[in-house]
Amino acid sequence: MRSSLRLLNNASKVIDKYSLYVPKDGVFPKGFQVASTATGVKKNGSLDLGIIKNINTSRPSNAAAVFTTNKFKAAPVLVSKKVLEVTSGKGINAIVINSGCANAVTGDVGLKDANEMINLVNENMKNKDSTLVMSTGVIGQRLQMDKISKGIKDIFSQDKFGDDFNSWLNVAKSICTTDTFPKIVSSKFKLPDGKEYTLTGMAKGAGMICPNMATLLGYIITDLPIESKALQQMLRYATNRSFNCISVDGDMSTNDTISMIANGAIDIPEITISSAEYQQIQSQVTAFAQQLAQLVVRDGEGSTKFVTINVNNSLNFEDANKIAKTISNSMLVKTALYGQDANWGRILCAIGYTELTDLKSLDINKINVSFVATDNSEPNELKLIVNGVPQLDIDETFASKLLSLDDLEISINLGTGKETAKFWTCDLSHEYVTINGDYRS
Amino acid sequence: MRSSLRLLNNASKVIDKYSLYVPKDGVFPKGFQVASTATGVKKNGSLDLGIIKNINTSRPSNAAAVFTTNKFKAAPVLVSKKVLEVTSGKGINAIVINSGCANAVTGDVGLKDANEMINLVNENMKNKDSTLVMSTGVIGQRLQMDKISKGIKDIFSQDKFGDDFNSWLNVAKSICTTDTFPKIVSSKFKLPDGKEYTLTGMAKGAGMICPNMATLLGYIITDLPIESKALQQMLRYATNRSFNCISVDGDMSTNDTISMIANGAIDIPEITISSAEYQQIQSQVTAFAQQLAQLVVRDGEGSTKFVTINVNNSLNFEDANKIAKTISNSMLVKTALYGQDANWGRILCAIGYTELTDLKSLDINKINVSFVATDNSEPNELKLIVNGVPQLDIDETFASKLLSLDDLEISINLGTGKETAKFWTCDLSHEYVTINGDYRS
Repeated sequence: MRSSLRLLNNASKVIDKYSLYVPKDGVFPKGFQVASTATGVKKNGSLDLGIIKNINTSRPSNAAAVFTTNKFKAAPVLVSKKVLEVTSGKGINAIVINSGCANAVTGDVGLKDANEMINLVNENMKNKDSTLVMSTGVIGQRLQMDKISKGIKDIFSQDKFGDDFNSWLNVAKSICTTDTFPKIVSSKFKLPDGKEYTLTGMAKGAGMICPNMATLLGYIITDLPIESKALQQMLRYATNRSFNCISVDGDMSTNDTISMIANGAIDIPEITISSAEYQQIQSQVTAFAQQLAQLVVRDGEGSTKFVTINVNNSLNFEDANKIAKTISNSMLVKTALYGQDANWGRILCAIGYTELTDLKSLDINKINVSFVATDNSEPNELKLIVNGVPQLDIDETFASKLLSLDDLEISINLGTGKETAKFWTCDLSHEYVTINGDYRS
Repeated sequence: MRSSLRLLNNASKVIDKYSLYVPKDGVFPKGFQVASTATGVKKNGSLDLGIIKNINTSRPSNAAAVFTTNKFKAAPVLVSKKVLEVTSGKGINAIVINSGCANAVTGDVGLKDANEMINLVNENMKNKDSTLVMSTGVIGQRLQMDKISKGIKDIFSQDKFGDDFNSWLNVAKSICTTDTFPKIVSSKFKLPDGKEYTLTGMAKGAGMICPNMATLLGYIITDLPIESKALQQMLRYATNRSFNCISVDGDMSTNDTISMIANGAIDIPEITISSAEYQQIQSQVTAFAQQLAQLVVRDGEGSTKFVTINVNNSLNFEDANKIAKTISNSMLVKTALYGQDANWGRILCAIGYTELTDLKSLDINKINVSFVATDNSEPNELKLIVNGVPQLDIDETFASKLLSLDDLEISINLGTGKETAKFWTCDLSHEYVTINGDYRS
């Protein structure tokens, strides 16, 4: 009875995620303008095309991207990859993104269409090889190029560009598919010389409703000048610790792309890998990317909980990461979280079947596992396993309280080294099954 | 609306699995006797202890086993492994299995208890190093050895052993935990010289209800004489094509064990790897193990569908197997099956993120994907992707009919070679979430 009531309570819990996670204002990097429009590809008339453009001409704008490793890469992924190869990431002045159709599994015509989107933007910007393209939405369908062409042309001919909060928010909206709220984050950071730079980021994700293949897209826009190789390295570092550390259902789409543009509108010497500021900026970009990535988990289909998996004191980063990932993807752990169950057995089990690179990373007599409250309440830790010994007489009242929190952490101390990895995941609910079991309509 | 009704219909579909999958009679290998009892470990008084013993003395009985690769191996796994190492699998005359308590994560006392179970059986059988032990049930709790000891002693002192159908069926029942029906299969096979041998198998699985860690246990008992190394090789071959090819939720327990005993009661020369009959017997044991393994999927928690993933024409077996496994474990594919949705995008996506050993195993222009009816109806195939091209104008009426079947096959033709792999899986339903999200009680 208790359990059924609890599940029912979870199921009926409606969280107003929009008001919780969408900011009312923001800060935006110098020298960028953005625009969006409704082309009619989305049948409900919502925004479905966005363009981010650099208007700073003091020096060339650089770009980097990390793409899906799925073998069925969508046309925009292949085309954008090519643009970055040809240009070595230099002189990229725009990103064009459409939602509603992923232009995936569309063969040669898909490539042609993706190239046409790029060419239309390049023509209007009077540039060559200067635009990246991304798409998200239904797969296996051809882009309605008449609508998309008209949308791109209208944006330029009617100069729909702006640099205010609403313009940026609308771009964040225009890339959404099954997302329940647009994901936008922005921050100003101070450099050692006192100058300020800005990061603005947008993302979309949420989940997959057939035949929509939800895509993870993320954009980080900055006015820093960053040399293109340094930008690529920084973005990969940040992505490996943010967008590659989130899990809703463990499935990876054909269109996943994280890209970053640095236009150099801030007047400082170009940042290279050997610059004194490189490490600081890389850390800031990483923390920023984590914020953005976490919003995707917050919007995880049907999720009622946001759970941080924190693996500490590992012999190496890779195994800490693998253990965090395995726990994050375990259906049994995710359903236990939904059921608010302090089920250390399932966590231990997932740790135990992780395929480690070094067996010495895991010592069953040294492992500690706890649930930790992340809301600053005291006491905040429920110890489940201490040095390999399960704690059988746990305080059930405290366990109940802790597990009813919307946000919590599973902390694993491997006790075999000093490395740390984090993952962010959500629970697996009835609602997830309803959404994803739903017949195409 | 259509989708909600469909999901509702699925959820309310109650299948009498017991009458569908539990036989009314069976055939049993010569020279074995089995017994079971209710020790009181299971609070509801159900059977929870079983013993299988060899009484044939014409030659030593051999045994082999395949154990979980989870790093947190339960005490009975460690102890049985040791017995097989010490004896090289020769002279194993009994298996003792208890349910209700998995004796997992129990440290040194767990090892002591598992050894005591073995010793009690050995004493009664007047043997040494002659017994394997298996446990399944709650983890992190110590065995109630007073009850178990009494159970073992009672079985022998009251001679509860029998070789009739009910005795075997009761052993199959005694190893169940969250299973909704006991899993028992038996068959007679004819050798080239006209002599007959018998295989009888039992299994348990179903799923995991916290803090019960459902275990996959399987036993194959035969009266063939099989040399111990040949037996180990044969069992591994069969397990890799049966119990290692099923997926309910992709989680692997601390206690999983498949074992086989061959007592040699059939008067033929001992079968070795070089025997003429070896291949035939290996094939028969493999097909038999598949039958038994499939029953575990049939009993998958909350499942409404039994789905065969058939990957053909692969460059190598390993990649065919990996692709089949990845599709089987995809939450998106499993929810689509529950929703009766011909969602080729999710299948393609799962194939695309499979980590292949050889990238040449997958050629996106050669792949064919179909749903196939397994009930001999005509037409029986719904083509989703033909040579890499998605079939957009599928017959929705036929698709609906096909996807409403309880049993179906997803057929993938990679077109890159000649190897084949099969996996058996079930869908992911609301009921699964309810069962596994349920609070410990």
